[in-house]
Amino acid sequence: MQRYFCEDKNGEIFNLSGNDMHHIKNVMRMKTNDKIEVVYDKKLYLCEIKGDEILLIKECENAKDETEIILLMPVLKERKIDYILQKSTELGVSKIIPIQMERCNINYGQKKENKVLRWNKICKEASEQSKRLTVPIVENITDFKHLKIGEGFKILCSTNEKEKSIKNVLKSTKIYDKLYIVAGPEGGLTLLEEENLKQQGFVPVTLGNRILRTETVPLFVLSAINYEMLE
Amino acid sequence: MQRYFCEDKNGEIFNLSGNDMHHIKNVMRMKTNDKIEVVYDKKLYLCEIKGDEILLIKECENAKDETEIILLMPVLKERKIDYILQKSTELGVSKIIPIQMERCNINYGQKKENKVLRWNKICKEASEQSKRLTVPIVENITDFKHLKIGEGFKILCSTNEKEKSIKNVLKSTKIYDKLYIVAGPEGGLTLLEEENLKQQGFVPVTLGNRILRTETVPLFVLSAINYEMLE
Repeated sequence: MQRYFCEDKNGEIFNLSGNDMHHIKNVMRMKTNDKIEVVYDKKLYLCEIKGDEILLIKECENAKDETEIILLMPVLKERKIDYILQKSTELGVSKIIPIQMERCNINYGQKKENKVLRWNKICKEASEQSKRLTVPIVENITDFKHLKIGEGFKILCSTNEKEKSIKNVLKSTKIYDKLYIVAGPEGGLTLLEEENLKQQGFVPVTLGNRILRTETVPLFVLSAINYEMLE
Repeated sequence: MQRYFCEDKNGEIFNLSGNDMHHIKNVMRMKTNDKIEVVYDKKLYLCEIKGDEILLIKECENAKDETEIILLMPVLKERKIDYILQKSTELGVSKIIPIQMERCNINYGQKKENKVLRWNKICKEASEQSKRLTVPIVENITDFKHLKIGEGFKILCSTNEKEKSIKNVLKSTKIYDKLYIVAGPEGGLTLLEEENLKQQGFVPVTLGNRILRTETVPLFVLSAINYEMLE
């Protein structure tokens, strides 16, 4: 069943966005009495279409309390970012912060704000497709030098770290509420950037000997975290 | 340094393919005395360009004996297959067998052979980029009903399995020389196909509760295997 995220609910009526209503009527060609799933405030509702309105049938499922996973990713070419956003949404990321790092060879300048709007839209669509109850937030692009990370368990994917593996580190820390992951651009983070992150509590880890593309790294780490959380 | 795979060596002269020579001269614009890496018969050589020839400087590294990982993937749309091939090459797959399954909604018919040639080319390029010493082989498309799998440890990614997780199964089997993974198309394998695979020794596993796109499944599993093999 098609799933939509909604931000406005009035009693038993869900007010979906104009885009979503267009999708329901003109793309999916749904009609009165057709059923859809609507997520509002992290709760899932079964709803039906009645003319121009979306009406509640029943409440279904609440979001479980999951580990909050925050991905700090380098600013990359559009195609690579789109890919990371889609896949990391599938793999359960909670928040994504694009970081302007020294070795990023792209800077969106004045297009920044539009990009971030677009990136949030990608996450919304990927969340609908993978039937999530929450949509990851893409924050504004942050310059590395303004980066201030709060409390949490912090992992730095580093090609300079040769000893301590991500497995070693994830296994040693069984319970985490909040997990930060930082991955570098092509060419990696600079030593100065790594030093800065270490001072903010990041633990450098190796992902092993394979040479992964920039856009594959977050996917590998998120898969590893999902895997480690399995019974 | 740029890496090329070569299938023809004559003493200290490596005969690269016409495509690769074109890449060296016209794309990379390399000149006499420039250095490249050449992989021949799973060995890495440092070489230099001398006019139209590629000459040996020194032998470097041998391929380690790695677990052989064979991915049985459904026949999918071109874009999704390209993506799986590129990423699974990065993540160390040894062989890929595209399978025509009941719920595949594409059949390449007479274009089959050309597709397989193209797919092998994608793996070669991805191997060069990720500095592998071996190139995964993409076999011809096999119809599911002709599938006969030999000895090895065999994992079936199934949405019907709710109990036994991939972690549970990978952990219980510490040493494996040969690992088969099968992933289904959109809508999954049919129950009959799953039954057939179980009779051939495949163990059905769940990857957890997330709803992953078809093309994400192999990457999740390969990431998990890489992760599990870390110290």
